[in-house]
Amino acid sequence: MSRVRILGFGMGPQHVTPEVASALGECDYALAVQKGDEDALLDARRAVCDAHGVELVVVRDPERDRTPGLDRAGYEGAVADWYAARLAAYRAVLEERGGTCAFLVWGDPSLYDGTIRVVGELGVPFDVLPGVSAPQVLAARHAVVLHEVGQPVHVTTARRLRGDVAAGQRNLVVMLTAGVDLDGFEDWHIWWGANLGGTGERLVAGRVGDVVADIEAARVAAKAEAGWVMDLFLLRGPEA
Amino acid sequence: MSRVRILGFGMGPQHVTPEVASALGECDYALAVQKGDEDALLDARRAVCDAHGVELVVVRDPERDRTPGLDRAGYEGAVADWYAARLAAYRAVLEERGGTCAFLVWGDPSLYDGTIRVVGELGVPFDVLPGVSAPQVLAARHAVVLHEVGQPVHVTTARRLRGDVAAGQRNLVVMLTAGVDLDGFEDWHIWWGANLGGTGERLVAGRVGDVVADIEAARVAAKAEAGWVMDLFLLRGPEA
Repeated sequence: MSRVRILGFGMGPQHVTPEVASALGECDYALAVQKGDEDALLDARRAVCDAHGVELVVVRDPERDRTPGLDRAGYEGAVADWYAARLAAYRAVLEERGGTCAFLVWGDPSLYDGTIRVVGELGVPFDVLPGVSAPQVLAARHAVVLHEVGQPVHVTTARRLRGDVAAGQRNLVVMLTAGVDLDGFEDWHIWWGANLGGTGERLVAGRVGDVVADIEAARVAAKAEAGWVMDLFLLRGPEA
Repeated sequence: MSRVRILGFGMGPQHVTPEVASALGECDYALAVQKGDEDALLDARRAVCDAHGVELVVVRDPERDRTPGLDRAGYEGAVADWYAARLAAYRAVLEERGGTCAFLVWGDPSLYDGTIRVVGELGVPFDVLPGVSAPQVLAARHAVVLHEVGQPVHVTTARRLRGDVAAGQRNLVVMLTAGVDLDGFEDWHIWWGANLGGTGERLVAGRVGDVVADIEAARVAAKAEAGWVMDLFLLRGPEA
């Protein structure tokens, strides 16, 4: 019978807590998926495994049907097939290897990460250890608190940003960005970061209207340096 | 000229990242305030310093005028005096000692912690390194993600909870609790924790109406075991 440990490792080996290091040392191997030929997340996981002397077993991400023009049902079916194939690939490794398997999570498993859900569906016993999350690294780099004194912080996705602002939010951490769309937020204050703690790290802060071009340039520069870019930001309304 | 490093240490030595350990090792000493004769936060900081061979300099928290019946202006004046006295005490140590001073922050400096603001007012150069925060430990212990897929999580205070829910929030992490007041939330789901990662840790999860008595009992038990209690929870509406 296999067992899984879901381990948050922050932005890299520099954030692996003693608790996670100890758990990882007790694992028989770590399991990760490889997406394409260059996979920065896989590289980060490999760096952690190498630092802790743990074997990394890599499965190729199953192919997903990306036929152009799929209707909604076709798209959802393709995603479901891909997801089932990935679960099957994980299951095959767990059954073949037995023992204790680590799933290494970039950042923290509790924020915009699917590992807990995926492992839950594998039907094996598992536990979770936390890691430093990207919003915390962002705040630390900019030496700010994520909220004003006694006020809330709303952690949301780029897709939901405008709806959440329309509903009254004035202090938001925005994740899962895929570009910078800040039209209409010119008078808000932003603390932005890309590739935090890794290759190509960039930071920009200021009034949106003053720095939005800097952010766009920094995003391009981060991607040019690292080959990939992952960014997020804290956005605060002038009246927050 | 002194320099300060603000270092998040999570819930204790088990969460001190290599990055923080390295920074702490380069500090000449750590500085902390002692509140009363028993101070669990001070004990946690001492444990981290002892584990890393760093001297902990302790200043007594200045007395605050707690005369009963102070009016609002009197209360605010007393708080301002106390705050100024604490800044002066910190400044005196920095000037006497020089070198690099660590301020160790329980959890992470970016959530409901005043260290960045206080150190900013000291007028010395400083930087910040993140630590594992309490909401992440809560989520890990309960093996849950803090939000539903693609949805936001609203991190707020117990004082603001009802207002934020009235404004439409249905998925909230609630911090700075001072008791459990969940009347009207019977059909919501709660994931609650006290003294996470420390003495007296307790966890309760379930439908609020089913578990609120368990939470109250667990809160009492945590306090009885540790001599103090710090709790927080994730609260999700039935329609979230």
